[in-house]
Amino acid sequence: MRFASDNAGPVHPAVMDALVQANQGWALPYGNEDITERACARVRDVFEAPEAAVYFVATGTAANALALATLTRPFDAIFCTPEAHIEEDECNAPEFYTGGAKLTLVDSHHGLMRADALTSAIGKLGSLHGPQPGAVSITQVTERGTLYTLDQIAELARIAHNANMPLHLDGARFANACSVLGCTAAEMSWKAGVDAVSFGGTKNGLMGVEAVILFNPEKAWQFELRRKRGGHLFSKKRFLAAQMDAYLTDGLWLDMAAQANAAAAKLTAGLKQIDRVRFDHAPQANMLYVSFPRADHQRLHNDGAQYDCKGTLDGPPDEMIGARLVCDWSMPDHLIQQFLDHFDG
Amino acid sequence: MRFASDNAGPVHPAVMDALVQANQGWALPYGNEDITERACARVRDVFEAPEAAVYFVATGTAANALALATLTRPFDAIFCTPEAHIEEDECNAPEFYTGGAKLTLVDSHHGLMRADALTSAIGKLGSLHGPQPGAVSITQVTERGTLYTLDQIAELARIAHNANMPLHLDGARFANACSVLGCTAAEMSWKAGVDAVSFGGTKNGLMGVEAVILFNPEKAWQFELRRKRGGHLFSKKRFLAAQMDAYLTDGLWLDMAAQANAAAAKLTAGLKQIDRVRFDHAPQANMLYVSFPRADHQRLHNDGAQYDCKGTLDGPPDEMIGARLVCDWSMPDHLIQQFLDHFDG
Amino acid sequence: MRFASDNAGPVHPAVMDALVQANQGWALPYGNEDITERACARVRDVFEAPEAAVYFVATGTAANALALATLTRPFDAIFCTPEAHIEEDECNAPEFYTGGAKLTLVDSHHGLMRADALTSAIGKLGSLHGPQPGAVSITQVTERGTLYTLDQIAELARIAHNANMPLHLDGARFANACSVLGCTAAEMSWKAGVDAVSFGGTKNGLMGVEAVILFNPEKAWQFELRRKRGGHLFSKKRFLAAQMDAYLTDGLWLDMAAQANAAAAKLTAGLKQIDRVRFDHAPQANMLYVSFPRADHQRLHNDGAQYDCKGTLDGPPDEMIGARLVCDWSMPDHLIQQFLDHFDG
Amino acid sequence: MRFASDNAGPVHPAVMDALVQANQGWALPYGNEDITERACARVRDVFEAPEAAVYFVATGTAANALALATLTRPFDAIFCTPEAHIEEDECNAPEFYTGGAKLTLVDSHHGLMRADALTSAIGKLGSLHGPQPGAVSITQVTERGTLYTLDQIAELARIAHNANMPLHLDGARFANACSVLGCTAAEMSWKAGVDAVSFGGTKNGLMGVEAVILFNPEKAWQFELRRKRGGHLFSKKRFLAAQMDAYLTDGLWLDMAAQANAAAAKLTAGLKQIDRVRFDHAPQANMLYVSFPRADHQRLHNDGAQYDCKGTLDGPPDEMIGARLVCDWSMPDHLIQQFLDHFDG
Repeated sequence: MRFASDNAGPVHPAVMDALVQANQGWALPYGNEDITERACARVRDVFEAPEAAVYFVATGTAANALALATLTRPFDAIFCTPEAHIEEDECNAPEFYTGGAKLTLVDSHHGLMRADALTSAIGKLGSLHGPQPGAVSITQVTERGTLYTLDQIAELARIAHNANMPLHLDGARFANACSVLGCTAAEMSWKAGVDAVSFGGTKNGLMGVEAVILFNPEKAWQFELRRKRGGHLFSKKRFLAAQMDAYLTDGLWLDMAAQANAAAAKLTAGLKQIDRVRFDHAPQANMLYVSFPRADHQRLHNDGAQYDCKGTLDGPPDEMIGARLVCDWSMPDHLIQQFLDHFDG
Repeated sequence: MRFASDNAGPVHPAVMDALVQANQGWALPYGNEDITERACARVRDVFEAPEAAVYFVATGTAANALALATLTRPFDAIFCTPEAHIEEDECNAPEFYTGGAKLTLVDSHHGLMRADALTSAIGKLGSLHGPQPGAVSITQVTERGTLYTLDQIAELARIAHNANMPLHLDGARFANACSVLGCTAAEMSWKAGVDAVSFGGTKNGLMGVEAVILFNPEKAWQFELRRKRGGHLFSKKRFLAAQMDAYLTDGLWLDMAAQANAAAAKLTAGLKQIDRVRFDHAPQANMLYVSFPRADHQRLHNDGAQYDCKGTLDGPPDEMIGARLVCDWSMPDHLIQQFLDHFDG
Repeated sequence: MRFASDNAGPVHPAVMDALVQANQGWALPYGNEDITERACARVRDVFEAPEAAVYFVATGTAANALALATLTRPFDAIFCTPEAHIEEDECNAPEFYTGGAKLTLVDSHHGLMRADALTSAIGKLGSLHGPQPGAVSITQVTERGTLYTLDQIAELARIAHNANMPLHLDGARFANACSVLGCTAAEMSWKAGVDAVSFGGTKNGLMGVEAVILFNPEKAWQFELRRKRGGHLFSKKRFLAAQMDAYLTDGLWLDMAAQANAAAAKLTAGLKQIDRVRFDHAPQANMLYVSFPRADHQRLHNDGAQYDCKGTLDGPPDEMIGARLVCDWSMPDHLIQQFLDHFDG
Repeated sequence: MRFASDNAGPVHPAVMDALVQANQGWALPYGNEDITERACARVRDVFEAPEAAVYFVATGTAANALALATLTRPFDAIFCTPEAHIEEDECNAPEFYTGGAKLTLVDSHHGLMRADALTSAIGKLGSLHGPQPGAVSITQVTERGTLYTLDQIAELARIAHNANMPLHLDGARFANACSVLGCTAAEMSWKAGVDAVSFGGTKNGLMGVEAVILFNPEKAWQFELRRKRGGHLFSKKRFLAAQMDAYLTDGLWLDMAAQANAAAAKLTAGLKQIDRVRFDHAPQANMLYVSFPRADHQRLHNDGAQYDCKGTLDGPPDEMIGARLVCDWSMPDHLIQQFLDHFDG
């Protein structure tokens, strides 16, 4: 019962095939070959952004940190929520790559940045003694499994742009969000005012690739240099590109996302039948935040269930303890059923 | 009517004399002379800390940033309040000097860090994916004009030490606090568990000197190199040292602080007589946070009063608007009276 | 005729198989699985270093920069040759990761750091005004295709250690060197006084993996945090580990290196028969630095030969122009012959 | 006999007077007062640069590092000589402030950067794998006591500009150079193609002030933020400005420089009479590099002479050992005579 993360499942067979294909023969290093060119073109097509600058890196932290470093200056503030991956889970990578910019936290509601709180936080800047307006960064799907509507994104973009700041979108689960919202990649990004996207693949069936997309390519040359300086330019870049190429072929990216979302929906439906399960945030994509009694956690644990448990297993059996449950594209029905069955115990 | 800041008044005549004295003749640069040696010895004496490492720099931002950089690592979190000078007024200097450590905000009450909130904030760390425990930094007098008791400092120190973190004290107004609490410098620092102090002089009658005191000198050599690397090693260091030497001679530092505090007390007493003045924080040293109607602000402004006004002068005359009023050692009675007189208008 | 680089050939089939194998099913992310454990154990075995800390990253620049950042401090000097990859080809990554340490260049002879020049360069340090002794970094195989003997490495290690500095070895072509010298990995590293190795795989048949080995694991925890902070911790780490696992199974790493070296030897032997070819450095592993007339370059170029040419193709046909020719494990005889045949033209 | 440095003598009385004057009464902090405005205007006047951005900091290292950080990007190379103060004596401050730019050394002759070597060093850049063209930095008076002619500066500026790089001039001894060359400040800076100057005062009779002058003010706002972030914005800025104001009043800066140069000329003339004294570089301003037998060093040392001696006092009495001798504005004739007299011994 593997609900710990969507980065723990297997790579999709079509992606593995693409890697094997990419290995035929010899190719110039550092992206001077066909596969990289083709994969970049596919990203531009999917995003309907023929002018966009597109770069591949192997981790989400690299994608976010390099994108933010390209967009901001060391004496800036970057606005994000307290739950943001860039704040909580990147061990100060944004501070490192930006040369010391400050992450300024903006109040959120179920993981969604509040527009009024952003306006208020921006309003506090202004003096030469404090940081300057740098960028706003939001995450879609949020770190609490919720979704911004396109209008909400557009509103945050307006606020950011009014303060002369670009809007960055951490899209580690971009595909899952697109699939739920039924919108295009363009609609969820530049058409809503997003200036740069970390377009995730690793949590959705790739071996390890994220694309950074800068819709305004003006600073793109800087990204290239920062990527090299960060040790993120792969000599055998074709093996990053091949994954992204397969991902965007025949809608594989959306198919996998739909499978993950469907699995999470099934899990949600099952857990809603169980009285003692509380939903801490309304799940909208492939990630659930629920609480249930410790006794259930113990039972699940003894049976080898893997997921992020927010408390210790020792203590009063009735105490409610949180859990994060994540489904990826490969989650089979029987594991969901097996998980649910434990609540009959 | 000069209430804008305690860094706007004149340098004390005894300090100017010391500078003139220090200018007699020739001296080896970079602190290899008597005055620096004597001034360091005085700091160690006043703090009853014969082993402490003592360094002089010219600004409070340099003192704080260098102290924190010496105490932490780039992948660490530094805990401070939302109002902390290091968070609000140093334009990312701590992030710069530490190489990208993260300032993690801890809830405060009237500018004072809450012990329970610190415990809770520390509890959220722990994963290798997020920042590591680095240091706790508090300010005494706080940025809201309030004071920690010695017990409160000791409690925060215990919490920090239990998490293997040192406690740094931003003492830009250290003297003002000592004077009010009637305690020794040692009692308000290492005896209460403080590991490093930025001991301010600039806001209390010096031209521009702060001492950084590391009670555990183990990492002191690192401070020296970081100071040089930051461009804060003065070749003519005797002119920093001479100021600190005069400051700590015959209790001048405490005398000036007492004068500043007395002036603020007089201003407080006067404002308490005025019904429409609200105290936003209970003033305990030389800094007042009050609110009063815009009409009064307008009258004061027209008469040339200088202070930090938290709103605009245009708008409804009855609206309450905040003000920060600060007194330094040189504040004469007649200016306080002049300020108060405006409320008779 | 693909002589541009040893990072342009295909991944070895056994490595591709290992990736496919690693993709069976589900595994905890971030290295909490069997394959990572097994691959680390193999590295320790091959290096006869049961206590060593072992980390996998995807690029050589990341390996070098993270290793050096772990070994040094921002106010330090790192000694290397003018040709060092860390100096010439990493776009300031070492400066970035170390927080601003200085690369101090030491004279070299055919790419080999001169011991007397290292002694002299170290002797210039000492003042608090300049950088402090940080680390010495050498490359084996050097960037000029030459090799240090074990004694030469040991001598540089002694000089470094006498100045309290560790010795880092950039082993992007470690396997090629081991194969030529006929020594063990341990003999070419810790037994010769090397403290940390960037053990390359990418240039020798892997898709993209380098191991960083710290023989003294004292600072290993720091490496982990710096790697995460640099965005180099892979969630699906098993796919890095699987490559290294295959690499060190049944001597594949040495077999591939031997093939590459043999191909280069064949090319060398052929070129030595040609009077107008000059050897700029004596090739010792899989990389040749030769010069020959422009007319030959033109002929090769017209036939699609790919290699690093040190001049322009336009100009006097007799002018001698340099070339760097590199062979990887997959270089077939017929391409070498095809290259040589052009000199009959 | 104080020949150790020109930062060891007294502050000029007119400067002390200006400080006392500046201390009359109260002034808004951070430069919002008359003295700062007046001093900036004087700098612009002296440099005939009405549009220039002018900033005051307290140390030369801060001036250089902040200027270079404003002019370059972290992935850049900064070209300087091996003897440059920024390379040898600033403990990696340029690397720190620039966020990791690389100091790339250009061959020099008697401390003067060679134009051909600069051209050649620039020519080696170009790849995305290495650093990009950032800035060229030269020092006038050089660190070896020699001077660039105006034509030589103009030639280096042309080379820099052709590569799209600005030229920075470290003018710690700018006044001494101007005085010798008999040129204006404008001629030795922007009229010769210099884009930014660190205009020194500390080594020439001030307590501790350097002005940074950016002739193109486009990036000036960045300088302000970087200065604050570096902890180099003085709250009581009037005390920096007052020194510079006095310095540029009635030609004091040139008078003091002329005195220092004259003292050095006298010392030079005396030493030239002594056969066993060798001039290592031809002294052109206020700094001499000479060598003489150890026996003379011993005699001077025993009599308390202070200067930078390049060797140890123990050893064969006839061995030639280098010395750096520096004169400041306050050097009296009798000390020069006293120094020379030791060679009669």
